[in-house]
Amino acid sequence: MKATVSDIALQVKGTVKGDGSATVNGAAGLAEAKSSDISFLKADVNAPTLKLFRETKAAAVIVPKGFNAEGKTVIECEDPMMGFAQVLGLIARESQVRPEGIHASAVVHPTATLGKNVRIGAHSIIEENAVIGDGVCLMGQVYIGARSKVGNDSFFYPQVVLREDVSVGQRCILHAGAVIGSDGFGFFFAGGRHNKIAQVGSVIVEDDVEIGSCTTIDRATTGVTRIGRGTKVDNLVQVAHNVQVGPLCLLVAQSGIAGSTRLGTGVVLAGQAGVADHLTIGDGVKAGARAGINRDVEKGQMVWGTPAQPLTDELKQVSLLRKLPALFKEFKKLRESLERNG
Amino acid sequence: MKATVSDIALQVKGTVKGDGSATVNGAAGLAEAKSSDISFLKADVNAPTLKLFRETKAAAVIVPKGFNAEGKTVIECEDPMMGFAQVLGLIARESQVRPEGIHASAVVHPTATLGKNVRIGAHSIIEENAVIGDGVCLMGQVYIGARSKVGNDSFFYPQVVLREDVSVGQRCILHAGAVIGSDGFGFFFAGGRHNKIAQVGSVIVEDDVEIGSCTTIDRATTGVTRIGRGTKVDNLVQVAHNVQVGPLCLLVAQSGIAGSTRLGTGVVLAGQAGVADHLTIGDGVKAGARAGINRDVEKGQMVWGTPAQPLTDELKQVSLLRKLPALFKEFKKLRESLERNG
Amino acid sequence: MKATVSDIALQVKGTVKGDGSATVNGAAGLAEAKSSDISFLKADVNAPTLKLFRETKAAAVIVPKGFNAEGKTVIECEDPMMGFAQVLGLIARESQVRPEGIHASAVVHPTATLGKNVRIGAHSIIEENAVIGDGVCLMGQVYIGARSKVGNDSFFYPQVVLREDVSVGQRCILHAGAVIGSDGFGFFFAGGRHNKIAQVGSVIVEDDVEIGSCTTIDRATTGVTRIGRGTKVDNLVQVAHNVQVGPLCLLVAQSGIAGSTRLGTGVVLAGQAGVADHLTIGDGVKAGARAGINRDVEKGQMVWGTPAQPLTDELKQVSLLRKLPALFKEFKKLRESLERNG
Repeated sequence: MKATVSDIALQVKGTVKGDGSATVNGAAGLAEAKSSDISFLKADVNAPTLKLFRETKAAAVIVPKGFNAEGKTVIECEDPMMGFAQVLGLIARESQVRPEGIHASAVVHPTATLGKNVRIGAHSIIEENAVIGDGVCLMGQVYIGARSKVGNDSFFYPQVVLREDVSVGQRCILHAGAVIGSDGFGFFFAGGRHNKIAQVGSVIVEDDVEIGSCTTIDRATTGVTRIGRGTKVDNLVQVAHNVQVGPLCLLVAQSGIAGSTRLGTGVVLAGQAGVADHLTIGDGVKAGARAGINRDVEKGQMVWGTPAQPLTDELKQVSLLRKLPALFKEFKKLRESLERNG
Repeated sequence: MKATVSDIALQVKGTVKGDGSATVNGAAGLAEAKSSDISFLKADVNAPTLKLFRETKAAAVIVPKGFNAEGKTVIECEDPMMGFAQVLGLIARESQVRPEGIHASAVVHPTATLGKNVRIGAHSIIEENAVIGDGVCLMGQVYIGARSKVGNDSFFYPQVVLREDVSVGQRCILHAGAVIGSDGFGFFFAGGRHNKIAQVGSVIVEDDVEIGSCTTIDRATTGVTRIGRGTKVDNLVQVAHNVQVGPLCLLVAQSGIAGSTRLGTGVVLAGQAGVADHLTIGDGVKAGARAGINRDVEKGQMVWGTPAQPLTDELKQVSLLRKLPALFKEFKKLRESLERNG
Repeated sequence: MKATVSDIALQVKGTVKGDGSATVNGAAGLAEAKSSDISFLKADVNAPTLKLFRETKAAAVIVPKGFNAEGKTVIECEDPMMGFAQVLGLIARESQVRPEGIHASAVVHPTATLGKNVRIGAHSIIEENAVIGDGVCLMGQVYIGARSKVGNDSFFYPQVVLREDVSVGQRCILHAGAVIGSDGFGFFFAGGRHNKIAQVGSVIVEDDVEIGSCTTIDRATTGVTRIGRGTKVDNLVQVAHNVQVGPLCLLVAQSGIAGSTRLGTGVVLAGQAGVADHLTIGDGVKAGARAGINRDVEKGQMVWGTPAQPLTDELKQVSLLRKLPALFKEFKKLRESLERNG
């Protein structure tokens, strides 16, 4: 990026106070910013943040309206976080290298349908009757299975695999190594062996979903596994067959959801959390890092621990666990004293 | 799939009661089935299942012999689950798109040996002296390392990696992104750094094994890492160097086994479970979701929790943990009352 | 490998006692060694090891200086572990198949810079302005993003993905399926949706780092995510955006580190451990398997459990947990007895 502070103010619909002519070519937090970086101030300004603001080398800082800049160059902005995110978006778009058109080495089946302005990187494979929407960008080495659909303006990083009959919505971002539509883990034991239950369902990833690297989302046995609109999934997450993830959820890295479980709207699973199969997790539930959920959770609850329980109960329990040695000791003392006196 | 109820009855060796001429083109559970789907009734019929049966829109339902169909079209079958699985298998085979022969873009070393009816998808690599058995299907972008062997009728989804000197048995299924034969994690600290212990052993995956997406099975330091016959491994599972997994095990998603540990026959590790290194886990052991096993487990045990203990002990412990606040309170009250009276 | 015991003694700077002319073509532990294998004795010789030594079929055993060989052929060596590791290294190098030069199917952008003796396997992609150092080997199907750098003598196994602007040092080993530089997981909620915070920072992997299969290391929001010199990372590990991992750390399989956390020098995270975001973990900290760290840890500590605490406290706690049923029972008895007598 190469822009002036004033250019950026225009982009983020902000107002410059100070030197709008300074050149900016990057962005960074207050502490790390160089004199060519733009930075920002979080909404909740506290003493340590103020200190960072005063000491920052940033060319300009995006601040809330009416903030006392103390002589520094700032861009006043309705929502500084949003403004800064817009700047980061500009930088990202400028540095993004994308394939031009369809690379000669890509293997696109003649029955596949490609929309307008599709970009397909080298060594990619598009199988028969796949449908690639307008403006879709598939970086190199991507695999799109037979009859699968990718919605308009979706972006796949290298080595994404979509198995057959999978549907991905519009404006989705799939990161390198994500695998969508592998067989669910279904077997039944008979005749002295685990017999495979073929997984003939599919996966629907709705619009505006982001899926992290090496995350695996399995196809349903029958019916669909669904990732709701606007849900964001981090790296190395497992979503088993027939799981229904509602819209606007956040599934943080290394979390996992077992078969047929349903998550409502806006559920958050923090890192390394797990949810057992066939459960219902209500809207807005937040599960702490490493929580292990083994029963239904009512909407709006915060749960923690394994087996997960309401956060306040878990905190109480952990604090009492720390006092167990004292309890055992005092109990022994009490009993002995009673026996002596008894 | 396009078949009549009678066609399907023939396939599953069942008997139609009702309208055998109805057309079926899919399969689904009782609740989700459309009028063109076939469904099934589980062996243990209870009230909610019966309700679903009565309300299902399915064209026909596979039921146990002698079941009162109440006028619905059914296929009576020795083992309805098995019958339904057969139907799913038919559907899966019909919808499976496979490469025809060896794709022109595949890079097959002249010293590699290919069996009869081998299918190798685009952008795959077969290194020197690799041996691919009869009827093997490698979807696109697969990598088979030098001197590795793939047994007859095995099926690899896109982007599977077999490193060199790995052996995979017959009728195995490896899902997209699985990596077999990476170096075990072996170092020794000397001279101020972690020195690599080259991993010169291999991996043997026996017959009828299934391995999930982004699962990693490391080669042995020396000797072999082994996955026993008929074992099924889910997604994102880690199997470290020199681990010996017995036949007919189930390793559920995100579970992990540390170096040199041995699992007997029919061991089940539920999701996110972990087993420490150099342990022996007996035949038929079942470890609950998120169990953390840090010592040998006798055959047939069910273990749970971290560190894992027998299930009944863990359940007892969890129930007492929930009562800790009351215990602390009552203990305090008792002691105070004794002090007052003492 | 095909060598005599004497050849090997020369390589490991050891002295043969016994028959130096025996032929060796492999290496194995004492118990598994065949008569054509070389083996070794660990530094801390105990009774079971001695028994294995006496019964081994190995052609020769690498032993500490002055060890009583009891007539067996041995190679005396300053550090037997180091000597054996050298032998394994020889075997590994001999069996390693590498691409010769740049494969015709590799897609290398004309602006990319390739050093001397670079090897690039089939179906690889090198994007614009990437810089590949001398002696680098990229096996097949590797992706190197725009402007990324790979240092001299680094080795990438198949299907590694480096996103754009990532820097990997010299002599690094990246295993199959590792993904470096995916977007960090950053969103802010506004306007009824999770808005993406573009991740415009990068990843720096310093010299002599090893990274396991399907491990994901995310790029920073701004600034860098860093993996320090000589650190070794196992399979399926998650390193989030802006994490700083010091030199000489060991991150064992399936462990994870949340955003902006800093690890000092020589930190060990055992398997399936997790560290929350924005924490500082001091030099030499060791976290046990499945530890869940939710606060800063002082240097040199061993921590265990979830939430993690010093190992001795955790062991004490676990032992008391096992005694909870007795405590509850005894407390009830005591209270009842007091009530009866009260």
